[in-house]
Amino acid sequence: MKTLPKLKIINDPIYGFITIPSVLVFQLMEHKYFQRLRRISQMGFSYIVYPGAHHTRLHHALGAMFLMQKAVQVLRSKKVPISSKEEEGLYIAILLHDLGHGPFSHAMEHSIVEGVSHEGISLLFMQALNHQFKGQLSTAIEIFKNEYPRKFLHQLVSGQLDMDRLDYLKRDSFYTGVSEGTVNSQRLIAMLNVKNDALVVEEKGIYSVENFIIARRLMYWQVYLHKTGVVAEQLVVRVLKRAKQLFAAGVELPASPALLFFLKNDIKLNDFSEKVLEIFSKLDDNDIISAMKYWEINDDFVLSKLCKMLLNRDLLKIKIKSKPFSEKKVEEKRIEVAELYRISEEEAAYFVFSGKLENQAYSMQKDTINLVRKNGKIVDVAKASDQLNIEALSKSVIKYYMCYPKNNTDC
Amino acid sequence: MKTLPKLKIINDPIYGFITIPSVLVFQLMEHKYFQRLRRISQMGFSYIVYPGAHHTRLHHALGAMFLMQKAVQVLRSKKVPISSKEEEGLYIAILLHDLGHGPFSHAMEHSIVEGVSHEGISLLFMQALNHQFKGQLSTAIEIFKNEYPRKFLHQLVSGQLDMDRLDYLKRDSFYTGVSEGTVNSQRLIAMLNVKNDALVVEEKGIYSVENFIIARRLMYWQVYLHKTGVVAEQLVVRVLKRAKQLFAAGVELPASPALLFFLKNDIKLNDFSEKVLEIFSKLDDNDIISAMKYWEINDDFVLSKLCKMLLNRDLLKIKIKSKPFSEKKVEEKRIEVAELYRISEEEAAYFVFSGKLENQAYSMQKDTINLVRKNGKIVDVAKASDQLNIEALSKSVIKYYMCYPKNNTDC
Amino acid sequence: MKTLPKLKIINDPIYGFITIPSVLVFQLMEHKYFQRLRRISQMGFSYIVYPGAHHTRLHHALGAMFLMQKAVQVLRSKKVPISSKEEEGLYIAILLHDLGHGPFSHAMEHSIVEGVSHEGISLLFMQALNHQFKGQLSTAIEIFKNEYPRKFLHQLVSGQLDMDRLDYLKRDSFYTGVSEGTVNSQRLIAMLNVKNDALVVEEKGIYSVENFIIARRLMYWQVYLHKTGVVAEQLVVRVLKRAKQLFAAGVELPASPALLFFLKNDIKLNDFSEKVLEIFSKLDDNDIISAMKYWEINDDFVLSKLCKMLLNRDLLKIKIKSKPFSEKKVEEKRIEVAELYRISEEEAAYFVFSGKLENQAYSMQKDTINLVRKNGKIVDVAKASDQLNIEALSKSVIKYYMCYPKNNTDC
Amino acid sequence: MKTLPKLKIINDPIYGFITIPSVLVFQLMEHKYFQRLRRISQMGFSYIVYPGAHHTRLHHALGAMFLMQKAVQVLRSKKVPISSKEEEGLYIAILLHDLGHGPFSHAMEHSIVEGVSHEGISLLFMQALNHQFKGQLSTAIEIFKNEYPRKFLHQLVSGQLDMDRLDYLKRDSFYTGVSEGTVNSQRLIAMLNVKNDALVVEEKGIYSVENFIIARRLMYWQVYLHKTGVVAEQLVVRVLKRAKQLFAAGVELPASPALLFFLKNDIKLNDFSEKVLEIFSKLDDNDIISAMKYWEINDDFVLSKLCKMLLNRDLLKIKIKSKPFSEKKVEEKRIEVAELYRISEEEAAYFVFSGKLENQAYSMQKDTINLVRKNGKIVDVAKASDQLNIEALSKSVIKYYMCYPKNNTDC
Repeated sequence: MKTLPKLKIINDPIYGFITIPSVLVFQLMEHKYFQRLRRISQMGFSYIVYPGAHHTRLHHALGAMFLMQKAVQVLRSKKVPISSKEEEGLYIAILLHDLGHGPFSHAMEHSIVEGVSHEGISLLFMQALNHQFKGQLSTAIEIFKNEYPRKFLHQLVSGQLDMDRLDYLKRDSFYTGVSEGTVNSQRLIAMLNVKNDALVVEEKGIYSVENFIIARRLMYWQVYLHKTGVVAEQLVVRVLKRAKQLFAAGVELPASPALLFFLKNDIKLNDFSEKVLEIFSKLDDNDIISAMKYWEINDDFVLSKLCKMLLNRDLLKIKIKSKPFSEKKVEEKRIEVAELYRISEEEAAYFVFSGKLENQAYSMQKDTINLVRKNGKIVDVAKASDQLNIEALSKSVIKYYMCYPKNNTDC
Repeated sequence: MKTLPKLKIINDPIYGFITIPSVLVFQLMEHKYFQRLRRISQMGFSYIVYPGAHHTRLHHALGAMFLMQKAVQVLRSKKVPISSKEEEGLYIAILLHDLGHGPFSHAMEHSIVEGVSHEGISLLFMQALNHQFKGQLSTAIEIFKNEYPRKFLHQLVSGQLDMDRLDYLKRDSFYTGVSEGTVNSQRLIAMLNVKNDALVVEEKGIYSVENFIIARRLMYWQVYLHKTGVVAEQLVVRVLKRAKQLFAAGVELPASPALLFFLKNDIKLNDFSEKVLEIFSKLDDNDIISAMKYWEINDDFVLSKLCKMLLNRDLLKIKIKSKPFSEKKVEEKRIEVAELYRISEEEAAYFVFSGKLENQAYSMQKDTINLVRKNGKIVDVAKASDQLNIEALSKSVIKYYMCYPKNNTDC
Repeated sequence: MKTLPKLKIINDPIYGFITIPSVLVFQLMEHKYFQRLRRISQMGFSYIVYPGAHHTRLHHALGAMFLMQKAVQVLRSKKVPISSKEEEGLYIAILLHDLGHGPFSHAMEHSIVEGVSHEGISLLFMQALNHQFKGQLSTAIEIFKNEYPRKFLHQLVSGQLDMDRLDYLKRDSFYTGVSEGTVNSQRLIAMLNVKNDALVVEEKGIYSVENFIIARRLMYWQVYLHKTGVVAEQLVVRVLKRAKQLFAAGVELPASPALLFFLKNDIKLNDFSEKVLEIFSKLDDNDIISAMKYWEINDDFVLSKLCKMLLNRDLLKIKIKSKPFSEKKVEEKRIEVAELYRISEEEAAYFVFSGKLENQAYSMQKDTINLVRKNGKIVDVAKASDQLNIEALSKSVIKYYMCYPKNNTDC
Repeated sequence: MKTLPKLKIINDPIYGFITIPSVLVFQLMEHKYFQRLRRISQMGFSYIVYPGAHHTRLHHALGAMFLMQKAVQVLRSKKVPISSKEEEGLYIAILLHDLGHGPFSHAMEHSIVEGVSHEGISLLFMQALNHQFKGQLSTAIEIFKNEYPRKFLHQLVSGQLDMDRLDYLKRDSFYTGVSEGTVNSQRLIAMLNVKNDALVVEEKGIYSVENFIIARRLMYWQVYLHKTGVVAEQLVVRVLKRAKQLFAAGVELPASPALLFFLKNDIKLNDFSEKVLEIFSKLDDNDIISAMKYWEINDDFVLSKLCKMLLNRDLLKIKIKSKPFSEKKVEEKRIEVAELYRISEEEAAYFVFSGKLENQAYSMQKDTINLVRKNGKIVDVAKASDQLNIEALSKSVIKYYMCYPKNNTDC
């Protein structure tokens, strides 16, 4: 790992300063693929609820790399050997792990690139970069794919207690101002160790782990799945779907070349040739927002109305319940709205719809968080807690929502 | 409520500025009974583990009063009428609620003023002040004693979600640096309302309440009941007990007049005449620490050794388990230590002892935290959570500890 | 001032919670003119240096309104009467004071809307809103224009110690992580008073005022005029100028309708008819960034190159000196670059240019910050300091810069 | 430098976690000389103004050591070689630099140990420890005494930009809540380098250095020399002086053995034998406060009154001016007070006195802060600033105060 000739530091409101650990990391940070992440918001439309939430995926990637540096330091101090090559591999893997995110990723995955996961695209980007950088990313890629022999390295990049989560929970809590969602990342990292090639947490860290799981649960329900944010995300999905539908029907809509490509073509992960990847690398939040600004004055009532709602924050109403909404209720409301807006019932479905929200605070199925007892025994945190029912937390919570236009009689 | 002729503000690292709301509150703050709280540490010997934990009961009282001001503002904005007299009563009640704390309160309650609760003494102080201030504290006292007709006022002062807890959890988390124990006091307050004369939390505040309960649990096990802190507290108990024992045996020990009084007399709550109260009002942390500094060079080995341990932070070893330690084990260790130190077995019990730690994260028995649903229904938070098993959290967790001198063979 | 039927709060990472003070303020916040500020970054391209600096003008406006609420509270507690109408006027004036900002405002003012100040446009927006809201903004407008009889109200909105500066310095320091640039806004506000209808600071606040002036100076040189940020801003200016030049030459470039309008027409403040204002209200950061993404693949080498530099953060080199760069040096470098890029010298001027940076930490000419001594005398802070030479700080500091492409021989 | 077998971390509210760098450092931290610093408040009686200011000298020492670790990291990354022995020397020197502080140090130096500097005593303690630890502190002592050949090491421990100041300014600002006094210690450290064996700051750090000097100035006048704090400190001086006077007159007063020793003997630095050092090592804040609690009921009116004032925060009035108070005025007031209290004029001087406060924000005489320009030239920061008149700041500011009892006619 070749260090930089002079100390390079980046200001971070959360950690103070982030140091760039190597020449290669610096070169990757300067690459346009990475710079693009400056134009992709970490939290999509959440700023509609939390006006401070404008931080980017680039900033999160830097933060996660900072935590990885701390983790390497801690593990080495506990005599876990990590070679210089592995160290750099960890930094690169975490730095680039979100490269595959598109704008409003979750919305896109339900509209124009259905079923294409951002992890898959991240890997494609890394492979392209590995080619450009003559194989220097090979270790990082092995770690990222969990093909590297030492398995705990992958867990630091991707697991239930990885540097990704430790940064984004802290960062999102910080920028939204939801201070009770904070996570003491540095303490959790200080408690890490490696046993049998697997990441473990020292026993006395159990309350911190509990707190981490509960904080994550709070962040989901209070922030990521906040009802107003859900409406906004669903509206983005529908904007993109409607646009795609109109293209399919032969209507031409203004859009950036990159967005046009994805609206006009059905792209699955298999279609991601080098050329498609290059087009994808041009996509960012601006393409979506700008398109909506064109489309809000389009003749198509549905498209125009959806865009106006988002741009002017004049959203649909949303109801949330623990039981599903009856099809009948949704149907009735659609008829009502169809009449009101003078559109077809099919079109009214863009404004009246139901769905579900789901979150699992902790998964006992994979990547469990394990504690190591003083006697060396390893135990799933869900089995170790003296009281907090983490097992209960491993059941999914499901809520049901229904959206419909305001200023109508309530349903 | 007569406001001050000019704005008086006090710097607080947590809230920024605290404003003094009335002339009477200002006068009470200037009283020597209140000023004494500057010399009583909020967290006793916890600074032995968390070097930042030197904040005082005075500072906590100011913080709790600040939160009370916020609570009054929020409730009024929700059209809950609170008269000016009630308002001042709330401020005074919360400001003075901890007046009865002695130095290292919990330790004292198990040694020299056994069975005397600080709340009882707080009330005595308030009554004395009421006398001095010609009845102006009557409303505050009624609220404090829960004799005021509007019951939610008492809940703001004392309950499972009172301004006391909301400040001390936040403050202790801040000063110890255990950032994950933080509580979003202002958000919780913003969610408060009053229904049927009882304090309730708006339904959407449920995750904040959950987080509050879990944060409190974490603070207990990680901070208040931290094993090193437990040792220190147990040592203070034993220092005071030994001193009392020596006095009973006719040995004279140097100590401040106030401390002498309590070491020489068995004082119960009923004994708290005006005179005793006045003596109590002279006691603070300095009396205990200074006495230990005299006693560390005393001829009595036990007393001297205990004091040295505390002053030089050369504490006993502690083991913690979920099962009680057998009497036999404790007995054996005592014999060992008696031989080592050449003291009697009875004396060895000052250095070898077992006990239990107990915490209940949430009580379903009294002062439950109640949510109000949108339809107006009121429900215990333990019944309302979609997943977090708060009921499980209402069971007490008990741990057992055993302490003994270092540098011996482990037990 | 009609308050909202229920408490509405907005999370803010800096102040905790911001409360919406009135129905009218809420309605203005929901207006699309205000919502547009979500899409205008407070600090333009500064995020290229400080990755946390993505906060928006909307967020700043809310923060400034929060501080105004504090100021009203403080002044009233000091017996400065402020009527309910004046209060609401203050909130509206500060909330809307930045409505006229376009995307990358400073860059725009030097390229496509030369000489049009954002304050002028803010006023036009307020007037349009006043029309829509049937005269309810009249007091706010009078205050904003400094036509309201009580002059200190205007000073709270616009002056050397106004709520605008108190928020943006604190906010920009917070989001960039330049913690030493922080300003204790709440303390400064607590020191405010009104004498002879003018805002004054209590004498004991002098060190806070000094600190405020120095913090502002630091923020200018370390953040707002950071050399990398300067390059980025100058590049935006040149991108827009080049685009305008190409349009003038008959070349058609893709751009959003709103941006097209301003590129094709020379718009001065006098041209801001209702129609132009409406078009302006469609402009935001996305228009500029999206246009650059089209233009980076344009045939025009200059335009394409400039856009690539910005999008991929592959900027020009910049030198800064206290003396101007000689015209000769700039000329020579232009010739060199013209050859290198095979462009005309005139075109090379897009990549090789010099300029100056200027900042005045404190102005003694207008809106001076005045202290009130205990004896009631009023004195300019620059005359009052016992040592800090604020007068020296009132001289403008000028630095000179020169930009040119990297990878060339140094000049 | 032998590292600890397992990672030891200490929570710090400011830096997060402090890591203990070596076995020897850990042993020194456990020594009773160091543990005593837990009982010495960093800011003396400042908590009378800033209720949060109860942090200790121990905590500051840990913080300064943390910053030293950062400084070593930064300098090494800039290829400044620092051997393992030097590194440990730095940590020990900074950890122990304040060991010689007594309780209310500044007050003591003007009463019972006149003219004995705490640095001198710190050195004695280090030498005693060096003896106990068999010479392992020799490098630390050489650095501390500035006898180590590489001079920049001493500058890190003691200079105008040393780790001591960088920690205490930040820490005192944090605990008092005077947020505008904050210093970006980590940024300043990141700007450090070594040229010609002397510490320098990179040119671009100039605004941070300016800000540091101004923040220090603000902390002096707003915090350390806050008028109420000054009164408290002057009262402590007088309490100790009076006690000494009474002892000299043959009056016996209760006091701890250590305090008794210093009250009864005139101790100069030369008198600090091993035995005296051991006695000194027993002195802490509790000795002073406890003595005052005895003395407040003493028959001597002066002593009793002074103690009551401090304990009950019922202080003298203080006036501050830029010109000295006339002897006549002081004299007149003394006569008035002598009559009022029925004491002699000489005794009245304990309650009526004048004095001066002095602070120099920056010294150009010694340990100047030097910048290194890009061309390698070194220049005093006072000469380098483009505008801020640091030279002006190097002149001492002097203010004059006069104290006298409240409730009298004003002077």
